[in-house]
Amino acid sequence: MDIKEIQKRLRDFAEERNWEQFHSPKNLTMALSAEAAELLELFQWLTEEQSRAVVDSERDMALVREEVADVFIYLARLADKLGIDIEKEVFKKMDLNEKKYPVGLSKGNATKYNRRQEKKGT
Amino acid sequence: MDIKEIQKRLRDFAEERNWEQFHSPKNLTMALSAEAAELLELFQWLTEEQSRAVVDSERDMALVREEVADVFIYLARLADKLGIDIEKEVFKKMDLNEKKYPVGLSKGNATKYNRRQEKKGT
Amino acid sequence: MDIKEIQKRLRDFAEERNWEQFHSPKNLTMALSAEAAELLELFQWLTEEQSRAVVDSERDMALVREEVADVFIYLARLADKLGIDIEKEVFKKMDLNEKKYPVGLSKGNATKYNRRQEKKGT
Amino acid sequence: MDIKEIQKRLRDFAEERNWEQFHSPKNLTMALSAEAAELLELFQWLTEEQSRAVVDSERDMALVREEVADVFIYLARLADKLGIDIEKEVFKKMDLNEKKYPVGLSKGNATKYNRRQEKKGT
Repeated sequence: MDIKEIQKRLRDFAEERNWEQFHSPKNLTMALSAEAAELLELFQWLTEEQSRAVVDSERDMALVREEVADVFIYLARLADKLGIDIEKEVFKKMDLNEKKYPVGLSKGNATKYNRRQEKKGT
Repeated sequence: MDIKEIQKRLRDFAEERNWEQFHSPKNLTMALSAEAAELLELFQWLTEEQSRAVVDSERDMALVREEVADVFIYLARLADKLGIDIEKEVFKKMDLNEKKYPVGLSKGNATKYNRRQEKKGT
Repeated sequence: MDIKEIQKRLRDFAEERNWEQFHSPKNLTMALSAEAAELLELFQWLTEEQSRAVVDSERDMALVREEVADVFIYLARLADKLGIDIEKEVFKKMDLNEKKYPVGLSKGNATKYNRRQEKKGT
Repeated sequence: MDIKEIQKRLRDFAEERNWEQFHSPKNLTMALSAEAAELLELFQWLTEEQSRAVVDSERDMALVREEVADVFIYLARLADKLGIDIEKEVFKKMDLNEKKYPVGLSKGNATKYNRRQEKKGT
């Protein structure tokens, strides 16, 4: 994936329309969350099994694909504005997760998996 | 960016821990939205100007970078599970947006920019 | 529920701390979304059945209750700032939904239920 | 606000349409987040000042009011399903916040206000 090219094209797109003024990091995180929620909305009344079967419906997949693109676009814009190298950060995070959740302790441990989220909430 | 490699490593990570059972598309959209909201939370009380100045704080940037990675990770996982080629979809969406918002009509048109969101809400 | 009293107390709380400056409607929608996502996060890896059984865990319920309060607090603040009478709007919306989804056509119609969301997404 | 009456009417509405099956706590947190994000979306490209001026536009306010109702409706449904007394939890949380952020230490302390969010993120 040529993320530099995507980011350049998104930047040119915003500049040509004089829309850079709207793309503060704050606003971009709002747009990103709103797009992520549109993806969420497509799945909210489906059972998990139905959510796996979405691949069989061209109609559903067209909607999902478009929302996935929208989420990516705002994430790429945000990273561009803040000078974040997404790929590098993803590798760092994957390294971290591999240390944090060693295979032996984590395997098939659903309870632990569920619980680890709660520690973060407040 | 080698997204195939990232997706393979995320898949292996989940399989080794027997966590694939948790990664239904439905659940992944929830995790994606939750991570996007953690990014949102970092910016919620900042002015737009302060949000642009986040780049000057190594402490803030460390938090932002990690959340950007988390959002990307769940998006990549979701795309992998549903067989979505993110790059292809992003180019399709950028083509679409260029037609939808021609430069002449959209330039510096803040009101129109704001309004175009409302049409989608219900 | 005495929502006027809750809103007055939240207003006094913000004023006494000179925090009204942070509570623009924009920022409050961000805080509301972030809190809603913390609730979402508590349920993201649970099956629907497990999510129903959350009532049996005092530990889980304590977390859920606190997030429910947080979501309500930011919604009440937003309504107060914008002069919205929540109760009135809820009754209006319930009237609307009863017309929009007549019992006869909607009964047990899962497909229709799922689909009605998609029309809204973009 | 007669929240018991609202919850009863929402419960009857779902039962009459055989929609209770869709209203697992998990799904309701998804719907709640999606609705909160629709509210967010209305404000994403506005400046904070513009967001305060939304009260002057009947057209904008109509959209905001409807989304506020939608958020409340799913929150009320969730609380009903899990037997949560929202008012009681809100008072508990307000008591807690008053202890956590004493007026003397918190007054006009924007930095502290911003920072307290970050501690929660991961």
